[in-house]
Order: sequence, then C-alpha cells, then structure tokens
Amino acid sequence: MVSSNHENAAGSLAFPKRLWGKIVGFALRLKNLGKDDPRRMIHCFKVGLALTFVSLFYYFKPLYDGFGLDAMWAILTVVVVFEFSVGATLGKGLNRMLATLTAGALGIGAHRIATLSGETGEPILIALFVFIIAGIVTFLRFIPQIKARYDYGMMVFILTFCLISVSGYRDEEVIRMGFERLSTIVIGSCAAVFVCTFICPVWIGVDLHNHIATNIEKLGNFLEGFEDGYFKISEDGQPINKSSSLQGYKSVLTSSSKEEIMANLAKWEPCHGKFRFRHPWNEYLKVGSVTRQCAFKIESLNHYLTSEIQSPPEVRSIIQGECTVISSECGKALKELASEVRKMTKSSAAEPHITNSKAAAENLKAVIRSSLSKHCNFLEIIQAGAVASLLFEVVKCTEEIAGAVHKLASLAHFKNAKPRVTPETQELPSQGAVNPVSGIDGAHHVITIDPSQSLRESENSSPPILDPRMEV
Amino acid sequence: MVSSNHENAAGSLAFPKRLWGKIVGFALRLKNLGKDDPRRMIHCFKVGLALTFVSLFYYFKPLYDGFGLDAMWAILTVVVVFEFSVGATLGKGLNRMLATLTAGALGIGAHRIATLSGETGEPILIALFVFIIAGIVTFLRFIPQIKARYDYGMMVFILTFCLISVSGYRDEEVIRMGFERLSTIVIGSCAAVFVCTFICPVWIGVDLHNHIATNIEKLGNFLEGFEDGYFKISEDGQPINKSSSLQGYKSVLTSSSKEEIMANLAKWEPCHGKFRFRHPWNEYLKVGSVTRQCAFKIESLNHYLTSEIQSPPEVRSIIQGECTVISSECGKALKELASEVRKMTKSSAAEPHITNSKAAAENLKAVIRSSLSKHCNFLEIIQAGAVASLLFEVVKCTEEIAGAVHKLASLAHFKNAKPRVTPETQELPSQGAVNPVSGIDGAHHVITIDPSQSLRESENSSPPILDPRMEV
Repeated sequence: MVSSNHENAAGSLAFPKRLWGKIVGFALRLKNLGKDDPRRMIHCFKVGLALTFVSLFYYFKPLYDGFGLDAMWAILTVVVVFEFSVGATLGKGLNRMLATLTAGALGIGAHRIATLSGETGEPILIALFVFIIAGIVTFLRFIPQIKARYDYGMMVFILTFCLISVSGYRDEEVIRMGFERLSTIVIGSCAAVFVCTFICPVWIGVDLHNHIATNIEKLGNFLEGFEDGYFKISEDGQPINKSSSLQGYKSVLTSSSKEEIMANLAKWEPCHGKFRFRHPWNEYLKVGSVTRQCAFKIESLNHYLTSEIQSPPEVRSIIQGECTVISSECGKALKELASEVRKMTKSSAAEPHITNSKAAAENLKAVIRSSLSKHCNFLEIIQAGAVASLLFEVVKCTEEIAGAVHKLASLAHFKNAKPRVTPETQELPSQGAVNPVSGIDGAHHVITIDPSQSLRESENSSPPILDPRMEV
Repeated sequence: MVSSNHENAAGSLAFPKRLWGKIVGFALRLKNLGKDDPRRMIHCFKVGLALTFVSLFYYFKPLYDGFGLDAMWAILTVVVVFEFSVGATLGKGLNRMLATLTAGALGIGAHRIATLSGETGEPILIALFVFIIAGIVTFLRFIPQIKARYDYGMMVFILTFCLISVSGYRDEEVIRMGFERLSTIVIGSCAAVFVCTFICPVWIGVDLHNHIATNIEKLGNFLEGFEDGYFKISEDGQPINKSSSLQGYKSVLTSSSKEEIMANLAKWEPCHGKFRFRHPWNEYLKVGSVTRQCAFKIESLNHYLTSEIQSPPEVRSIIQGECTVISSECGKALKELASEVRKMTKSSAAEPHITNSKAAAENLKAVIRSSLSKHCNFLEIIQAGAVASLLFEVVKCTEEIAGAVHKLASLAHFKNAKPRVTPETQELPSQGAVNPVSGIDGAHHVITIDPSQSLRESENSSPPILDPRMEV
C-alpha cells in the first residue's frame, strides 16, 4: 500500500518532469538552430521590421486615407514575398508585380467585354473567361522552364484575373480597384525587397558558390583521410579511422535538386560583391554535376572502409604506398580547386597534384603487374584490386572537376592569382583558408552553408533558401 | 545585286518561318506534356471548375449579401490551396483553416489588449505585437519537422494575425471581420478539397507507392540487361548493348528529396483504395533508401560498360557464366519485389532468385580462386575482379531490399498471395504486370509516375506533386 502510494507520487511527479525535459530540449534545439546560422535570427528581425513598416499605412491617417482597406494587400504581400535570400525575395516580388499588372489589365478587359453582353450574359461570360484562363495558366505551370522561375507569377496571374474580373461584377470601379491592388502590391513588394537587400542581405548566389566549393572540399577531405581509413589497421584488425569525419561527402550524393533551385534563385540577384548580374550560374551546376560523379566513386571506395571482407594487411601493404599518394594528391588537388572557387582566383595550384596522382596511378599499375599478381589467393586481392581500380577513376574525376572549375573561372572572370614563390608554399594559405569550413566538426561561417549538416537537415531547416515559389 | 535581293527576301521570310517553327515546337511540347500524364489536363479542368464554383458567391445576390466583398477570400483560397494531389490540397487546406482560426483568435485578443492602452498606446502596442509574433513564428519555420508539414500554416498564421490585429485599428468590428475571413476561407478550402478529392483524385500516396516499385524495377532492368551490356561484344570490340535502355536507374540516384516530399504529403491523405489512413509511409522511405544504396553500386557497375579500359574478352569469358547468373537472378528478384510492392501482396517469389544468386556468388568466388588467378596479366583481370566484387555487393543489397520490402509488406498489411503451382510459372504473371511500366520507351500509365522521365524533368514538370508548401 505504502509502495503503491510512493509509485503514484513518483508517477504524478514524472509527468511534469518529462514535460519540463521536453520544453528544455525544444529550447535547446531552437538555440542550436540560431547558433548554426545566425542569419536566421537576423531574418526573423527583418521580417518583423518590414511588417511593422508596411502596417504604418494603417496607423497614419494621411496614408490610410490614400489606400483605405486596400492597404491590407501591402501587408499580405510582405508576408508572402519576404524570403530568406535576396534572390528568392526579388524573384517573388518581380513575379508578383508583373503578374498583377498583366492579369489586372486582362481582367479589366474581360470585364469590359462581359458588360457588353447584357445583364444575363455578363456572369456567364465572366465564368467562362475564368474557367478558360485558369485552366490554360494552370497547364502552363507544368512546363519545366516556367515552373522553375515563373510558377509563383503564374499563380498570382490566375488569382488577380479572377479577383478583378469577378469582383467587377459587383464593384463598377474595376479600374480603380485594379490600380489600388497594383499599387499596394508594388509598395509591399518594394518594402520586402528593400529590407531584404539592404539589411544584412543573404545572397543565395554566394551560398551556391560556397556550397559548390564546400562540396569539392568534402571529397578532398575524404581522400586525404582515406589512407588512415583503409590502410592503418588497429590491433583488432579494424581500420583505425572509420570515424564519421570521413562521411561528410555523403551529402554531396543527393544535392542536385538543391543546387538547381539555388541556381534558379541566384539568377534573380543583381550584381553584388564579386558577382556580376549575369554571373554564369549554370556553370556551377556543371561543376556540381562532375563533383557528384566523383562522389559516387567515393561512395564505392567508402564501402571498402566498412566492408567485412577485407584483403589481408600484407596484400594491402603492397599497394599502400602508391594508393596513399593517389588519394592524398587527389585530395590536395580538390582542396586547391575548392580554394580557387572560394577565393575566386584563377590558379593552377591543383595541376602539380593532379600530375603527381597520375604518375602514382601509373606506378600503381606497375606494382599491380609485378607484385600483386605473384600473390597466390586471387580472392584475397580482388578487394585491393577494386580499390586500386576506383582510385584510377577518382584521378579521372579529379581531372574533370579541374576542367569544369577552370571553365567556370574563365567564364566568371575570376581574377588571376598572385604568383607564388615555391610549389611548397602554395598549399599553406589556401589550406588555411579552406580547413575551417571543410571541418565536419561544426565550425560555422556566417556566409557559408553549414557543412556539418546533412543535406536532409539543411534542406528541411532552411526553407526560405530552397523554395522558389510561394504564396499569394 | 540580284543575289543580295534574294538574300534579303530570304532573310525577311526566314523570321516568320522561324517564329512559326517555334510556335509549332511549343505547341508540340504542350501536347506531349498532356500526353505524358493525362491527369494534368484533368487537373486544369478541376481548377477551372472549383474557381467557377466559388465565384458563384458573387453572381447570386443572396449569397453575395451574406459575405459581400469578403467572398474574395474564398476565390483567393481556392487558387492557392488547390494542388495537383489530394494530399497536398488537404494539407494546405487544413493548415490554412487551422492557422486562420488560431491566429484570428490571437489577433482579436491582441487588439483587445491594445485598445486598453489608450489612443496613443494602441498603434505602438499593436506594432510591437506584430513584430514579436512575426519574428517568433518566422523562426519556428526553420525547424525541420515544422517546415516539412506546417510551413504553410505558419505563414498563414503570421498573415492572419497581422491582418486582424492591424485592421482592427481602423475597423472596430474585429470579431465580425475575423469570423467572415474564417468562414470564407473554410468555404474556399472545402471547395478545393471537395473538387480535388471527388473528381478523378490524384493520390500522392499511390504515386509514392508506384514510384518506389518502379525504382526497384529500374534496377532489375539494369541487372537483367547487364550481361548483354558487359559480355556480348560486337565485332569492333564494343559491347553490343550500351543503349540508353540500361540507364533508367540513373533517376534513382537522386530521388531522395522527391520521396521525402511525397511521403510528407501522403500522410495527409485519408484512407483510399488499399491504403489506410495511417499507412506506414516512412517504411517507403526506408525501402527507397536501400534501393538507392543498390543504385550506387549499379552506377559503379555501369561504369564498366562504358569504360575505355576493358578486361580482354578471354578474361571476361571466364567469369561470364556465374556473373550472368548473379545479375539476372538479382534482376529477377528485384522485379519480383517490385511486383510484390505494386500488387500489395505478400510473396516469397523473390527468395529462390536470391538463393540462386548467392549460390552463383559462391561459385564465382571458386572460379576466381581457380581459373582467374592463373591468368598472367593481373592488370587485365583487375577490371573483371572489380565487376565480380560489385556483383557480390549487389547480391547483398538485393537481400537488404527484400528485407525492407517484407517489413513494409507486414506493416502495411499486404494481403497474402495465392499459392502458385510451380516456381517456373511464378515469373510470367508478375513480369507481365511489371514490364510495361519499367520500359524506358514511354509507356505511360495514368496512375504511375512516368518512368521515362529523368528525375530532373519530373521534378520540374510536375510541380504540384512536389511542393508541400504554398501561398496565402
């Protein structure tokens, strides 16, 4: 009886305790969300500011007398147009303004035609127009090119056309109505774009730029750590470096749709910093694509780090030397290329590393031809052979990435790097600049996309970067 | 002089001709867009219908007298809530209604508190409320779980709160205003959901279901065609089947974000057909994930179809027999699993194929141990060894896919298949059901996602399926 009372008391205490634990956990998550990318906090402040600004239309009598209840459209526009990045906000703002203008004009025209057909014919004709225009524009939204950049505009077009032509049936002053709707939407869009662009702007183009560089770095990190992961075996026969620090490349495997969305948004941005208006954003997609091809090879390589069937250490030691040179030289080359992208300087610092890795690949072939084939158990060396074969592929991919990066450098007019004195000294500054970002341990930069997040998390947690289309 | 005139005439004719060509091209593309997925045409018809329906509020005097100009919100709601699939429409409709209800109540409360503080204090207090609420809710939108399912609701919350509390400053009847806004939004949302659900509904859950089955089939197709691609060499030393028919699996590599979005939308759908309300949609993501792991291995295998360095035919012929058995048996197993998913029947038809492929893998190891290692040039056999090693991986992946599919089958209560007489007769019906969809040649089904589209195209061209969040 006593113990049962105790249990009840403990039970009744457990619930508030659990609740408190959940609240603390939630608060901690919010804190981390803001800490991971402080721009998020600033974004919230900016949204509040823009909304407070446009609501002035209600508070000041002279402003309110001009627009009346239509000032509501300005508030609505700020809420739906204001996005995390300048590109997204500008794209939506322009889409919204242009669509309102054209659909408003068309709506007024439709209303005029409908009124000609008499009192009975008018609603029938308007309903027909609405049906046809809504159907056609909805279908146009399925076209990939339109969907990628003008989907939001298409939706606003349907909306405005319906509102203007249908409300015209009850409100004779369609032209005034159309004009007021347009002007309040222009005010709301401009307020959103102004606050988004001039207060701590988040340029999606810079994010894409850094995202591509970070992805190349992630592959470089894997390759530089590959030796420890594959060849250095601990006493229990397991590789000593199986750690998650090598797994950063995984997010590269599935980043294609994210990159496409970012490039589409970046095209809306005006010139900023080192980026011109017509910066070759599509070239970033090409670099991203060859990087992903390389990541697929690395995914296969990674398998041999964790595979249960391993070639015995004596077999691995035969190929260790040249494999190490190939992977570390490719890793260095990739990091140089990442640094070239990040610093926006033309550089040939990656070339010697690529040359070294190709030479090592030739040596490895010779080693395989001479030493490995003397080994009696083919089944034991097949894994080592597969690793070697994948490393040959990685060398080829690295060359392709270098080609794509150099093409980007020339099209985007990267500036020429200052000549350096010796090849040895080349690596220090660029690595120094690169390492903090490529770390998987949580070093975050205000300006770069957080490399420690998996794609899934980053896709989920930064919605305004990722969605080109939204809302009325 | 004459030729120059001719050129001018040709030039002046060329422009209208080019323009006409472009128009014809555009029309053809539109036609293909509708032909690829006839549901798109129906969707356009449904949007037009729903809009015409809600605009009745304007045309009929008794209805108009009830709502007045607020009927506009019903039209606006239909435009922004109506999506391609039932899940997306229902999700947005519920988000919109719930957010309007809660934010409306909060807005009225805020307005009441503000009015207590006198004429000067009122706008200051309202502005402060707007700033704080907008900032907090904007921050909540960064939380991945909220973003995935309630992002649209969060935006509508900010919007409604601002509109109600700010307009309250000029319009004393905030409660009436809030109620009218809520009721028109409920009418608009219900109209959209009703039309979307009861006229040729597009269930995103069915799409996800078929998408997962199709992806498994695509891998099966590759494996079944692998023998022709790798071992059957034409006279010029090139594989005879390098054709694009083997490349269908490529879209599997990058389909993860698409699957996540589809699963999130499917969770909104009520029970329909064989799908219950709480269908285990997350299990589909797990099946999708192991399928993608297998696709990564196949990507590496595919490389050896197109690689310039090939093991000579005499080396390949040594492993051909067992490799063929492994790939074709794995292919058959995957197709059986795809059929199990598609037909929603528990089946063990894949097991014998998996057993066969495992036996063949053991045989292949023996072949490698005995015959291949006698071959003198190790460099020549390293590619063949890598292919064999990858095939071992594929066998393992196939087992994992089978495990995930069986778990899905049990959690989703797939019905038991009718016992079949002999193992031989098993394959015919299921293959018959499977083949038309897995073809890359453009066989399209009304109910399945078009397998011939690359992910990029399908992501671009079917926007309403893919976007969980949209618009006011």
